[in-house]
Amino acid sequence: MIKPFLDENFLLQNTTAERLFHEYAKHQPIIDYHNHLPPDEIANDINFSTITDIWLNGDHYKWRAMRANGIDESYISGAANEKEKFLRWAETVPYTMRNPLYHWTHMELQRYFGIQELLNLGTASAIYAQTNADLQTAGFSVKSLLQKMNVEVICTTDCPSDDLSFHKKEMNGGQGFKMLPTFRPDKFMNINDDGFLKYIEKLENITGGNISTADDLLAALENRIAYFNALGCQLSDHGLPGLKVAVLSDVKLDAIFKKRKKEKLNNREAAFFQMEILFQLAKMYHQRKWTMQLHLGPIRNNNFRLFKLIGADSGCDSIGDYSQAEGLSYFLNRLDAEEKLPKTILYNLNPSDNELFATMAGNFNDGTVPGKIQWGSAWWFLDQKDGMEKQLNTLSNMGLLSRFIGMLTDSRSFLSFPRHEYFRRILCNLIGRDVHNGELPNDVKWLGQMVENICYKNAKMYFKF
Amino acid sequence: MIKPFLDENFLLQNTTAERLFHEYAKHQPIIDYHNHLPPDEIANDINFSTITDIWLNGDHYKWRAMRANGIDESYISGAANEKEKFLRWAETVPYTMRNPLYHWTHMELQRYFGIQELLNLGTASAIYAQTNADLQTAGFSVKSLLQKMNVEVICTTDCPSDDLSFHKKEMNGGQGFKMLPTFRPDKFMNINDDGFLKYIEKLENITGGNISTADDLLAALENRIAYFNALGCQLSDHGLPGLKVAVLSDVKLDAIFKKRKKEKLNNREAAFFQMEILFQLAKMYHQRKWTMQLHLGPIRNNNFRLFKLIGADSGCDSIGDYSQAEGLSYFLNRLDAEEKLPKTILYNLNPSDNELFATMAGNFNDGTVPGKIQWGSAWWFLDQKDGMEKQLNTLSNMGLLSRFIGMLTDSRSFLSFPRHEYFRRILCNLIGRDVHNGELPNDVKWLGQMVENICYKNAKMYFKF
Amino acid sequence: MIKPFLDENFLLQNTTAERLFHEYAKHQPIIDYHNHLPPDEIANDINFSTITDIWLNGDHYKWRAMRANGIDESYISGAANEKEKFLRWAETVPYTMRNPLYHWTHMELQRYFGIQELLNLGTASAIYAQTNADLQTAGFSVKSLLQKMNVEVICTTDCPSDDLSFHKKEMNGGQGFKMLPTFRPDKFMNINDDGFLKYIEKLENITGGNISTADDLLAALENRIAYFNALGCQLSDHGLPGLKVAVLSDVKLDAIFKKRKKEKLNNREAAFFQMEILFQLAKMYHQRKWTMQLHLGPIRNNNFRLFKLIGADSGCDSIGDYSQAEGLSYFLNRLDAEEKLPKTILYNLNPSDNELFATMAGNFNDGTVPGKIQWGSAWWFLDQKDGMEKQLNTLSNMGLLSRFIGMLTDSRSFLSFPRHEYFRRILCNLIGRDVHNGELPNDVKWLGQMVENICYKNAKMYFKF
Repeated sequence: MIKPFLDENFLLQNTTAERLFHEYAKHQPIIDYHNHLPPDEIANDINFSTITDIWLNGDHYKWRAMRANGIDESYISGAANEKEKFLRWAETVPYTMRNPLYHWTHMELQRYFGIQELLNLGTASAIYAQTNADLQTAGFSVKSLLQKMNVEVICTTDCPSDDLSFHKKEMNGGQGFKMLPTFRPDKFMNINDDGFLKYIEKLENITGGNISTADDLLAALENRIAYFNALGCQLSDHGLPGLKVAVLSDVKLDAIFKKRKKEKLNNREAAFFQMEILFQLAKMYHQRKWTMQLHLGPIRNNNFRLFKLIGADSGCDSIGDYSQAEGLSYFLNRLDAEEKLPKTILYNLNPSDNELFATMAGNFNDGTVPGKIQWGSAWWFLDQKDGMEKQLNTLSNMGLLSRFIGMLTDSRSFLSFPRHEYFRRILCNLIGRDVHNGELPNDVKWLGQMVENICYKNAKMYFKF
Repeated sequence: MIKPFLDENFLLQNTTAERLFHEYAKHQPIIDYHNHLPPDEIANDINFSTITDIWLNGDHYKWRAMRANGIDESYISGAANEKEKFLRWAETVPYTMRNPLYHWTHMELQRYFGIQELLNLGTASAIYAQTNADLQTAGFSVKSLLQKMNVEVICTTDCPSDDLSFHKKEMNGGQGFKMLPTFRPDKFMNINDDGFLKYIEKLENITGGNISTADDLLAALENRIAYFNALGCQLSDHGLPGLKVAVLSDVKLDAIFKKRKKEKLNNREAAFFQMEILFQLAKMYHQRKWTMQLHLGPIRNNNFRLFKLIGADSGCDSIGDYSQAEGLSYFLNRLDAEEKLPKTILYNLNPSDNELFATMAGNFNDGTVPGKIQWGSAWWFLDQKDGMEKQLNTLSNMGLLSRFIGMLTDSRSFLSFPRHEYFRRILCNLIGRDVHNGELPNDVKWLGQMVENICYKNAKMYFKF
Repeated sequence: MIKPFLDENFLLQNTTAERLFHEYAKHQPIIDYHNHLPPDEIANDINFSTITDIWLNGDHYKWRAMRANGIDESYISGAANEKEKFLRWAETVPYTMRNPLYHWTHMELQRYFGIQELLNLGTASAIYAQTNADLQTAGFSVKSLLQKMNVEVICTTDCPSDDLSFHKKEMNGGQGFKMLPTFRPDKFMNINDDGFLKYIEKLENITGGNISTADDLLAALENRIAYFNALGCQLSDHGLPGLKVAVLSDVKLDAIFKKRKKEKLNNREAAFFQMEILFQLAKMYHQRKWTMQLHLGPIRNNNFRLFKLIGADSGCDSIGDYSQAEGLSYFLNRLDAEEKLPKTILYNLNPSDNELFATMAGNFNDGTVPGKIQWGSAWWFLDQKDGMEKQLNTLSNMGLLSRFIGMLTDSRSFLSFPRHEYFRRILCNLIGRDVHNGELPNDVKWLGQMVENICYKNAKMYFKF
């Protein structure tokens, strides 16, 4: 018995899995509580002009695959025209067999465009023509695309110095879904980055005050937190290789900040500054009842040649092997000791750290909120069937899957929302498998409620959206 | 075909697995060669007064789950009454679906109390009443509980300064099973711990001599080893984040010991002391033909708030990411070079180290004893189906599964012995699966003997019980 | 339904897997682009005198298993006679159930000798007699053994100071297969090794010039690269615990080289030398269009007692836990920045680094060659079903499986070539499983081409053999 590819029971390997998905998971709305969608494009409800523009430009997953397939950079980030780029991508698709791109590509063509054909050089021109024609229509404006996927909330990722004008516009606009900002202050913690002093200036401009001390900086950030909060922000986000135990008993935060105005700092000073700012911010998040997200583990911009050519986020990041346990323990414990630890989501990029993260989260649940410390969904390179199954299984074994707040896209693409469906199918399949193996009671109603919770209701309750 | 939950063929997915379990594994006695049961409670053959007392109080696995489920600490380690605590646990149980607690809970209710119902808020009061009534009866004294599980040997975990009076009593008592001590001298190696000097005093008291030099300390420990040995002790046990290559060419062990009487040591001195004492002890174990257990990898007491409130072992430990390979290699090699390496069991807590540990063990088998260096059973957080399968598969691929001495509970709970059954089912299922896939010959008699060996006979021979 | 052990559909769990293997994979020639076969034995087309000699002597996988089984060293690397050693191995074989040795052993007996019986003490004498008789015949000369396995190319592993006389002989000999050298210059990079200065002397002898400066050394190595190249060499190979970020701004390479003539260096100097020589060599490989292999991660010679007794490669190496990401990133980026990064194959020994390596490779594909940076086949301890499946799955998820250049034996044994068959069965089974689960389209012709590519054609094209 060969199951058809990508039919309605895709990834569902038994009847219980099918029931859980079709009767419980499928119809839940989507709360996409972490992504990188551009607020202006949403607020202006734009239409993309070509499938290349909405699907290929900016998608570093596809870029990496094309480079591995021997495609010249001109067809990836370069000067080739949109049709040529699409053809080179179509040529690459069959070579992505077993990569998540193969599934994503065909799910996205099916769900948004109703295209059942497989993409390859032979079908590319027709698909290029159809999708481009569709994209001109009202049903393919970005808001329509989100509504087609039953999106209820999206949380974008925003710089503290952003004026959030598009969020403000949306707030008063009254759409079918909410667009909320997320506070991502990395630029104000990475004190040795070349642009640091410029970012401080930007923050001075938007807060209208001088930032000459570390306290000024913290006050300015708190000011922005209040501003974000007024626009419905419920989350912060932070990206780092890892947290550090950074203690400098003889140096004050302010001295470091002032020194930076003249010169760069050594690694210990920079780490101390980063960890101390994060610590102070975390307490502000706690006060606001926000959730703090920590994305830990990448080694970024490995390829300087491409970095110079096309900048960051161009497909040259990968998985690092930084120490994680001691830094996490120290940081979370320090906040907990002051009873100032906010709701927190810990995401790891190296799957070798799965069990470490899952068990670290368990040390700091304090009974105030179910699942207070979350071990986040499989992230970035791990956001595929194998990676999600590992995350779901390890979470099940070392924590409470039932309290998991579930999936998010983390995406820059308006066409990526079928990944929620992908996640839901995988979840239902794992639970269905356990039922058929006699490892869970055959109680579909109870398990269906758990599925609904993980797909939607837990996030709704956790974030109070 | 949906398999019933937790029936007689639980976890057995084909007929060969069933035959291996029911014909070979099930009836083997239990040698529980590492646990944390209280010797006094065994010697006095006590009855617990409530299911809360025997099942919840002291079980940090359940505590973590309850905290993650949003239960207030008062119902966990706090002042709430026993019934209330049980109800909060019962309420949490459905939320542990896919966590090993869900299986353990229902296996323990079935095996000890004959209860087939699932535990939840609806069934909680009846189950509370029945189990409490049962616990008052002679058949539920702790010795009866052990005998019900066909336990032949249990090895408790004991401090060198313990007088082992309860072991002595049992030795002369003539029970259906042996209770033997295990020598766990961590307190005398962790030189910078606050209590170190007090522990030394206790050791002075029990050995009746002054401990003013490092040699005195080693002599006192050797004295206790002889004492433990006379009471049938065959194992030592050690818990550390990891072994270290700690060389201090210019400093003597004795100088460090004497310095500690006045002040704390730096990290290098403390590591050197710990590794050096362990090295000297290992040679004593070798002389006695004991087995040395090394439990490596946790990061403990992460939550200081709860530590102050309820102390160690309260559910705030987790998995660390310490370097392991060089320290292990250095330590084992140094002993082997003097031909003083005892039988050794290496346990890792981070499953990312599975392959490292499995292959490190293989470097030091010297042909004197089958499976001399054992890579120990999946431990603590890993003691669940997925963790055990990974350990069994990695051991199979990188060593000799056939020579494995198998499972232990590592438990503080008298109700935890169905975990041996759980392990045996998983083992039989893996082997059965290989047979049905054509990856092992269909020779049930031969494989059944292997299963008997791993469940019981290998440990019997290895420890000479 | 119990599948027979090791029948023609071994490891193939559905009809698509069977078709992919029998119609596409099975008949592909073998390009064994990395092994440790002795060139002299090939060139002289020798016959081994006993099965012990060809199968046991020098096979440290079997040695480790025998030691773990409690066999005395005299029967392993010691003075016992060949028959006795074979009997002890035969006795051990049933105890290797679930270890890859159990499969390899019986595949090798089947494929080369047509023996269907299982090896154990009962069958040992007859098998000893038959295999020894076979080994005397012309059909069992080493070239015949390779031809029986349809070998098209083998790449041996050779020291830069080797005169390659046997490769030269073979080049002009005109066999059914090519034997090409591989350039392995570890000895000239490990500057603190005791033999370093002697190796330099050897290199002086073969190049006929003085090596008194670091530039002399690089020139001598380049001279040998040219020599190797003329004999068809297309690959280099390097074995290290890990690459390092080794920057010494104030010291010149030449000063270090000269200092070593008088004394040993500190660790930082030695690391700088090693990394710098490797960097310069990599640029030479790029110029020659060679492929650079990096084998990273082992911790070697852990057991000094056995090392003194029987030397290196005696079964006392294991898996290390060295940091890998930053060193790899730094090294590959530095070469890429100069546009001098050769085709590269990265092999990791610790499977916890699988995802790290898979994603690191993806940072440096530049579109010039499909799959330019390869994440190499599961290596050494990982070269078994579980390890290969993990490598194939992770490669699928994080890169392009379709561009993978596939399997190699890495072996010292002329009887190890069924491992290519083993790999091919595993590959076909994974793809067949995806088809039956509906995760890949049911297009056997397309998938069959992918299988042919991975088994043979990708390597053929990548290396231009």
